[in-house]
Amino acid sequence: MPLSDDQQHEIMDARGVGMMTTRPVARALDDQLHLPRPVLDHGFIRVIDYMGDDAAVVQAARVSYGRGTKAANEDRGLIRYLMRHRHSTPFEMCEIKLHIKLPIFVARQWIRHRTANVNEYSARYSMLDREFYIPAPAQLAAQSSVNRQGRGAVLEGEEADDVLRLLREDAGRNFDHYQDMLNEDAEGNSIDPDRAGLARELARMNLTLNTYTQWYWKTDLHNLMHFLALRADAHAQYEIRVYAEAMLEVLEAWVPLCAEAFRDYRLGAVTLSAQMLAVLRRLLAGEAVEQPASGLSKREWGELMATLGRAA
Amino acid sequence: MPLSDDQQHEIMDARGVGMMTTRPVARALDDQLHLPRPVLDHGFIRVIDYMGDDAAVVQAARVSYGRGTKAANEDRGLIRYLMRHRHSTPFEMCEIKLHIKLPIFVARQWIRHRTANVNEYSARYSMLDREFYIPAPAQLAAQSSVNRQGRGAVLEGEEADDVLRLLREDAGRNFDHYQDMLNEDAEGNSIDPDRAGLARELARMNLTLNTYTQWYWKTDLHNLMHFLALRADAHAQYEIRVYAEAMLEVLEAWVPLCAEAFRDYRLGAVTLSAQMLAVLRRLLAGEAVEQPASGLSKREWGELMATLGRAA
Amino acid sequence: MPLSDDQQHEIMDARGVGMMTTRPVARALDDQLHLPRPVLDHGFIRVIDYMGDDAAVVQAARVSYGRGTKAANEDRGLIRYLMRHRHSTPFEMCEIKLHIKLPIFVARQWIRHRTANVNEYSARYSMLDREFYIPAPAQLAAQSSVNRQGRGAVLEGEEADDVLRLLREDAGRNFDHYQDMLNEDAEGNSIDPDRAGLARELARMNLTLNTYTQWYWKTDLHNLMHFLALRADAHAQYEIRVYAEAMLEVLEAWVPLCAEAFRDYRLGAVTLSAQMLAVLRRLLAGEAVEQPASGLSKREWGELMATLGRAA
Amino acid sequence: MPLSDDQQHEIMDARGVGMMTTRPVARALDDQLHLPRPVLDHGFIRVIDYMGDDAAVVQAARVSYGRGTKAANEDRGLIRYLMRHRHSTPFEMCEIKLHIKLPIFVARQWIRHRTANVNEYSARYSMLDREFYIPAPAQLAAQSSVNRQGRGAVLEGEEADDVLRLLREDAGRNFDHYQDMLNEDAEGNSIDPDRAGLARELARMNLTLNTYTQWYWKTDLHNLMHFLALRADAHAQYEIRVYAEAMLEVLEAWVPLCAEAFRDYRLGAVTLSAQMLAVLRRLLAGEAVEQPASGLSKREWGELMATLGRAA
Repeated sequence: MPLSDDQQHEIMDARGVGMMTTRPVARALDDQLHLPRPVLDHGFIRVIDYMGDDAAVVQAARVSYGRGTKAANEDRGLIRYLMRHRHSTPFEMCEIKLHIKLPIFVARQWIRHRTANVNEYSARYSMLDREFYIPAPAQLAAQSSVNRQGRGAVLEGEEADDVLRLLREDAGRNFDHYQDMLNEDAEGNSIDPDRAGLARELARMNLTLNTYTQWYWKTDLHNLMHFLALRADAHAQYEIRVYAEAMLEVLEAWVPLCAEAFRDYRLGAVTLSAQMLAVLRRLLAGEAVEQPASGLSKREWGELMATLGRAA
Repeated sequence: MPLSDDQQHEIMDARGVGMMTTRPVARALDDQLHLPRPVLDHGFIRVIDYMGDDAAVVQAARVSYGRGTKAANEDRGLIRYLMRHRHSTPFEMCEIKLHIKLPIFVARQWIRHRTANVNEYSARYSMLDREFYIPAPAQLAAQSSVNRQGRGAVLEGEEADDVLRLLREDAGRNFDHYQDMLNEDAEGNSIDPDRAGLARELARMNLTLNTYTQWYWKTDLHNLMHFLALRADAHAQYEIRVYAEAMLEVLEAWVPLCAEAFRDYRLGAVTLSAQMLAVLRRLLAGEAVEQPASGLSKREWGELMATLGRAA
Repeated sequence: MPLSDDQQHEIMDARGVGMMTTRPVARALDDQLHLPRPVLDHGFIRVIDYMGDDAAVVQAARVSYGRGTKAANEDRGLIRYLMRHRHSTPFEMCEIKLHIKLPIFVARQWIRHRTANVNEYSARYSMLDREFYIPAPAQLAAQSSVNRQGRGAVLEGEEADDVLRLLREDAGRNFDHYQDMLNEDAEGNSIDPDRAGLARELARMNLTLNTYTQWYWKTDLHNLMHFLALRADAHAQYEIRVYAEAMLEVLEAWVPLCAEAFRDYRLGAVTLSAQMLAVLRRLLAGEAVEQPASGLSKREWGELMATLGRAA
Repeated sequence: MPLSDDQQHEIMDARGVGMMTTRPVARALDDQLHLPRPVLDHGFIRVIDYMGDDAAVVQAARVSYGRGTKAANEDRGLIRYLMRHRHSTPFEMCEIKLHIKLPIFVARQWIRHRTANVNEYSARYSMLDREFYIPAPAQLAAQSSVNRQGRGAVLEGEEADDVLRLLREDAGRNFDHYQDMLNEDAEGNSIDPDRAGLARELARMNLTLNTYTQWYWKTDLHNLMHFLALRADAHAQYEIRVYAEAMLEVLEAWVPLCAEAFRDYRLGAVTLSAQMLAVLRRLLAGEAVEQPASGLSKREWGELMATLGRAA
């Protein structure tokens, strides 16, 4: 169960109190505020707060463009225009704050996105919970032989069993030793009155990278979409991609017009190099172009053919 | 009159619609949302939206510090602790968005604070309004003779009259010529059907730096306070300081506990160098310390004596 | 003449002293260090310092990717791979510092790129020079009738003469009044001993937006290329584009492999939306697709046809 | 031995080649470029590249302040003025790039400083080395009983032995199982030809947080000093403080005038709140002030007395 009793009570308290505001309200998101969406075996994301909605993006764009862009029924068109032409500042006018529980090795990838505000649970101050990420069998993949940072086929049989057993045993043993060195049980009581207990800031180093941590993470809509463009992508590691996919659902609830434009012009879009564009024009003119005379490397040729849905 | 008819209507519309939310509501700020506070002769600030309140700062700090910091009645103490020890991340969890009208030369100082989101009215797209900042007579100061970037005594008599006349005439004439080059009147109609009209992106270069512009400006509470620490300070130029002072009132309405701690630990605080501290300890021990043997330069000695309320 | 005597001497001093270093040296750039490239009528850019070269990008990428990517002759391929797949962090490992003289209205666009370090000449401390940007006749364009932020045909005849005269007269008169209010001539001497002189921080507001300012501007290679992708683009205003074009030449001298990859994968690249890609696949399959049944708006259809070099 | 053979060769190659440059050279730093300074049991820092020196800070400040601040022999005074008054932009004009080897739990604290560029060794691409941080006996401290995030007395006897044994055994066993799951030995050869081997991006989750990682880290002088102000402080965790202390030595070699000013005005400085300042003035006036009537909390009173070198 991913949420502590205290957190459950906090959610119930927060959701029980509706208040009046004259701020913009994104109704669909407001209605699911505070509630956790489960991710992986013990993780979650839940929206704590947000600022702005689709209309706030439009309003900010209209401050910039002033008179002459007033037609009220053109919000969708304007948002699509902004997204297509990579205007970023109007999207920066919306903000969202999430509470996220995630394995430490995922947190290490995530934190590389620097344009966000973060408050992480501190293992210098407090003991961590006994929770580790153990992959579901379907996610237990071999190293890819073609992509140095990718996954290949799913492991099976004894090898899979061994891996799962090692991951479970090592994480559990190391956590037990962590508590043992702290000389503190889960309730914070001393285990052995004759021992001092190692400092928390040291003991934590014995934990494995699949131990769960949690943080508050706040970012603006532009940077959220940049995160999603990279992390909801097929090349992202599965364990961070599932968080991005849960956040895509949040995006739909929050700013449906932006989410639609994001799918069309970012997630589903492709970029072609100058050389690829030249090849494309020749193909469209009916010319038979082959890789060797294309000006593209074999790798790029393969990428272009895949993009165009053609056999390489 | 600082707000256009359209903006007035927008305010009335926004304030007329109260909606329910389960987000934290800062009541005192919510009640004054959208309303402009006048600043200088034609400027204003008005809060468009906000995220979080004093409790959100506390909540974020408690995620970091975990168990053991739960006592409910200690919010004020915790906020003061965070401010005193320059913990910045919990304050980053609140966000505010303002609509600001300000002279261009003030905007040029303001934009140097990079950790904010900005959408400025674009004079490439639209014509600017015929509004210039003309200092009130009490603000018409001579160059300081002791501070290369400061003001001295107030100008008086004929010199003051001349300055005001020049500022008014030059700004007005340049604006008239701007419209003339655009070949466009205030309603956007062509003045002379036989002329093409200069491109807006070029014509704007004829305007003076006291012409008003406007923008949406969004930042987090930490960076807002950093801005205020620099710009509500006596060394800041008067024309940006009045904006900072208006924003201090917003801070009080929004996050009263943070605002109190900010006044005590930042605005009213002083920093002493290692050498100053050494002098101070000698003074407290009853020693008679003079500048030459203090290890401080004359300038620093003067600063220290001023801080301690002593004659230099 | 864009550089002051003092700046000329500084350049000669700096270039006269060669020193040994074990840092990477980008020879072609090092040889042109400090020398100004003229831009517009009084502006310039000149490189003051730099860190890193093409090999530094490769070195940083290899720290990340570790063993297995060592082949020494693959620098070009690796840089092209990084650029194509939008890996940004290895490019952040190079840094460049420029001294730039530019009109204030250009500086206002430029400063919107926040991920840079800036030290601007302060008109609170010192008097500005009597230099204004006056467009060359070929750049004196009418407002575009199809693009709200673009230029149309070049102004001609009397209208062009009037515009140039107004720009010259207004900038000159306002600058004269600026000096007059300061009560200070170009050598810093008092004009009238009986007047106090207006504070510099106030007098500057009388200047026009085509007055030249100058700054040191420092950024990393990734953000430099992002700046160039936006500002060397045909949609950028001419007056900032010429600075970007001069910086593209700097890029070639500094990091030729990165510059080549940047031209292929960023400057010359196109992005197609999900809908555009679907249309493209149908076209390649020999289908006759028309705009109404394409799923694209008229505007997007026009953009796609232009990209593909086809009649809309 | 912290550096691999490849890295040793890279260092010898880099140091063997001196080249001429007209860029500013910080001789003392240049002479120690590339050489590692050992930190902790397997870590190091080494400077890879730098831009600028003390004179570059002065030069940038003089662009801002223009005429009137030219006296050549006043560099030290100007740098001290800039530091004392917290002018940050001139210090942003220098940049430094370090190669750092550090335990993952230290890297997790470090990365929270967001205004830096980072390229970290990727355990998705490559196998990590078998190196873990094991505290020296003198650093094996108990949890502090007065400071929730601090250390108390050094552990001794059997408890210390047990802790060291657990840390060693758990890190070693988990690393062995990591290699086992990868089915790869240290040379990258397959251990068991019948097994597929778990994907690297998954296997790494079994490692402990004291495993060493490495990265290139690049930042400007202003942000470097901000990092050092926080991390060379007595409140910082020992394991990151030793890195900060090694970097302080780098600072001395690179920009000795800035380093001196930094020690006087930042590292050795104290900040007093408005209430503390009021107490201080009363003390200096000879008044006997006690905590209850001081307006300070007990905690703040204690902090003030400690600052002033008085008994609380």
